Amino acid sequence: MREKRLGQQTIALKNPPGIAAAASVVGPKEGDGPLKSDFDFISEDAYFGEKTWEKAESAMLKQAFALCCDKAKLPPSSLDYIFSGDLLNQCVGSSYAMRESNVPFFGLFGACSTMSEALSLAAMVIDGGYADACAATASSHFCSAERQFRLPLEYGGQRSPTAQWTVTGAGCVILKAGGPAPYVTHVTTGKIVDAGITDVNNMGAAMAPAAYDTLRAHFADTGRAPDFYDAIATGDLGNLGQDILRELFSRDGVDLGLGYTDCGVLIYSGTAQDTHAGGSGCGCSASVLSGHLLKGMLEGRWPRLLFCATGALMSPVTSQQGESIPGICHAVALDVNPGN
Amino acid sequence: MREKRLGQQTIALKNPPGIAAAASVVGPKEGDGPLKSDFDFISEDAYFGEKTWEKAESAMLKQAFALCCDKAKLPPSSLDYIFSGDLLNQCVGSSYAMRESNVPFFGLFGACSTMSEALSLAAMVIDGGYADACAATASSHFCSAERQFRLPLEYGGQRSPTAQWTVTGAGCVILKAGGPAPYVTHVTTGKIVDAGITDVNNMGAAMAPAAYDTLRAHFADTGRAPDFYDAIATGDLGNLGQDILRELFSRDGVDLGLGYTDCGVLIYSGTAQDTHAGGSGCGCSASVLSGHLLKGMLEGRWPRLLFCATGALMSPVTSQQGESIPGICHAVALDVNPGN
Repeated sequence: MREKRLGQQTIALKNPPGIAAAASVVGPKEGDGPLKSDFDFISEDAYFGEKTWEKAESAMLKQAFALCCDKAKLPPSSLDYIFSGDLLNQCVGSSYAMRESNVPFFGLFGACSTMSEALSLAAMVIDGGYADACAATASSHFCSAERQFRLPLEYGGQRSPTAQWTVTGAGCVILKAGGPAPYVTHVTTGKIVDAGITDVNNMGAAMAPAAYDTLRAHFADTGRAPDFYDAIATGDLGNLGQDILRELFSRDGVDLGLGYTDCGVLIYSGTAQDTHAGGSGCGCSASVLSGHLLKGMLEGRWPRLLFCATGALMSPVTSQQGESIPGICHAVALDVNPGN
Repeated sequence: MREKRLGQQTIALKNPPGIAAAASVVGPKEGDGPLKSDFDFISEDAYFGEKTWEKAESAMLKQAFALCCDKAKLPPSSLDYIFSGDLLNQCVGSSYAMRESNVPFFGLFGACSTMSEALSLAAMVIDGGYADACAATASSHFCSAERQFRLPLEYGGQRSPTAQWTVTGAGCVILKAGGPAPYVTHVTTGKIVDAGITDVNNMGAAMAPAAYDTLRAHFADTGRAPDFYDAIATGDLGNLGQDILRELFSRDGVDLGLGYTDCGVLIYSGTAQDTHAGGSGCGCSASVLSGHLLKGMLEGRWPRLLFCATGALMSPVTSQQGESIPGICHAVALDVNPGN
């Protein structure tokens, strides 16, 4: 039954689904950053018209979903499934955003790798003949994440230099059978990799070994080298994690090349925006993919993209109990002209 | 591309995957209940050899997974994917249980509907040609759930009559292309349904409308009536939710019949075990399916089963903010002789 399987972790889609539309909605800080012209909507404040940050996150994700349906000219009723997740306890960002959608719903938890996970499953259920159109979405919000994972914002805690800044952002992609371009051609699903990192202020180091593991599997399974892709975007490893990933590959004699970048590095101007090691959160790779990377594909800047969102599968409770931080990374290959 | 789709929410598997093995591991209270002879392993205490309840939950799930691989005579290295989720913040029950598995991992959050969600996706990726064997797993733990969702156990809080008791239990099912029986033949994926219930001590009432919505869609999409199945098991609606579901169907003139039951009702002896409205938690339907329902199928007691785990997609934070409780239910049809 594994006729679509290449190697241990990668599958090749027989009839690659295309991306009918993508939409991104972000907060004011992200709208001040280097990618500001790529986002569909930048909110003037972090509340998105709501009274709490958790409700704000759901409102933002709901807006990205509605915008994406509009852009794809597909009403929610024509979608077969929504795949969605976020960082909030019990993934309530997604549940409350989608509760009025009236679309069959699969809730995911992949931490900051969620956008890749959602794209992977959406692509498989379309290619598998179960669906014609699916939405893949994810979100994060700086304020809801800070109080849940770290400290009350009012406390004004110092941030360590290796810390990343949780992106206030949501991304939505609608995949459709038959296209249009770009197409999802391959999916490499990550294993959980735990390198023993226990510093919750250094997620880049915790997730880089997972990115290395998945990318290495992708290259081995497909027979491709990094230069097959015009762009390889991990996310959200940040500056430190990105360097660690390059270093891990260079030990194997593999150069990730100039096409390699990271969503957490792209989204902020580190020095000017005081974001230390870069952006993070499910919304980081989700909004950078939906707002920047897919746009660049359609404009011919990088016709072949390997999108590899990374996640840290920990909680404040596991860290308090002395556990190390397991990471995961799922890679999705996108191609404007898969026939070439 | 929707050649395997029946109606709006249901898909029919072309080559129904079978269940190679199932395993269940539970705590002492569940091991004292009416299903005690159906579980594979009953722990003498709730710690499962660990020092915290969260670690205990991961250890229990890891044990169920290992036991299931043994029973299926399939080492983890022969599995293509694991689909797993739980109730803990950031789903750490699953992540830490599976971090040494070395199997491509999809993390799910469907609250107590997780076992149905995992089975649904595992069945689709096998039938779709992406995998030969997948594990679907879920867990919950009374002690980790109480302190996360409710009150410190030491406080000894009173429980309302409508409250359910979170099951300490884990279930694992390994699906395999081609069989053996029973086979997964249909999957009906639920939409999020919010009936406006705000009482966190009455989850049965919050989830019953979602079960009604999904079951109604399943019957409409497949043209089947409740009596097509020898058993229909929702879970975990408990006594109250079960009665609400019967009532909702009776208003349509549909009798769910004697074959209808609920995993939350089956697992405890309510009066003797002081569990009020019944069991709950991802581990409730997961362990009842893996330990009791699948055994009954193989023994010929109910050759056709509709398994419909139900989840409440809320968090303590959303309830504190006055939100109502959205529910979801995914239905999976299992058949010992799907050709008949």
